[in-house]
Amino acid sequence: MTTNILNDDYYMRQALNEARQAFDKGEVPIGAVVVCKGRIIARGHNLTETLTDVTAHAEMQAITAAANVLGGKYLTDCILYVTIEPCPMCAGGLLWSQISKIVYGAKDEKKGYSVFSPSILHPKTEVVSGVMEDECASLMKEFFKQKR
Amino acid sequence: MTTNILNDDYYMRQALNEARQAFDKGEVPIGAVVVCKGRIIARGHNLTETLTDVTAHAEMQAITAAANVLGGKYLTDCILYVTIEPCPMCAGGLLWSQISKIVYGAKDEKKGYSVFSPSILHPKTEVVSGVMEDECASLMKEFFKQKR
Repeated sequence: MTTNILNDDYYMRQALNEARQAFDKGEVPIGAVVVCKGRIIARGHNLTETLTDVTAHAEMQAITAAANVLGGKYLTDCILYVTIEPCPMCAGGLLWSQISKIVYGAKDEKKGYSVFSPSILHPKTEVVSGVMEDECASLMKEFFKQKR
Repeated sequence: MTTNILNDDYYMRQALNEARQAFDKGEVPIGAVVVCKGRIIARGHNLTETLTDVTAHAEMQAITAAANVLGGKYLTDCILYVTIEPCPMCAGGLLWSQISKIVYGAKDEKKGYSVFSPSILHPKTEVVSGVMEDECASLMKEFFKQKR
């Protein structure tokens, strides 16, 4: 499975749109989309405050929504675009989903899955990082600056 | 926060009842209950097949249900009883939930969170393992024997 930089930017922009929706609701601004054969089949943004549910991360919602669209629980031919590196919970969900590829924007130096164990993800899952990194990171910085 | 062996056995038996419900539905038989001040406030069993959703683990559902009952997203004064050691996804969810204590029955030697990184859980989260270990493990063995 290959994607070119142009496509990655396009899909990450869609994930960023999701993140901005979270921002506007006072939620930590992280957004995700799931792409299957070039088509966005699911979108999600962080809703932990709105739903009073710590499990309502953008990625978890996108996994559930994508499986719903596909009618099967495995996302074998899918790519997840997410603005920030997934946490261990989301990485664990992505492992179970058998997703092919994960593309994320900015690293999460404190709570990213790779801080805990890169092997939470399946070794065959391709991981690309740094796509629109500055935009993804600065939305987070802006959010936490406002909160202080 | 302390619990005696008698209480642990009682609550684990409730988690086992949940696991048996999963078994009867053809789901990997894992069950969980969340206890707050001695009272069971949430129950869950694995429903990944029924819901076509890899995130529908017993623990994840119990976290969401418990937060719903409490009206807040943190499970600070709660104990989770679960028949099998949580996977990284569920351990990650439990970290976010700020749960006080986790009691599990049998270890998951392949996909338990501790195989990946014990630090997925917060260092202050108390972990007790081996409660009704044989019953919890043998339900799983029986399930996978049938599947073969």
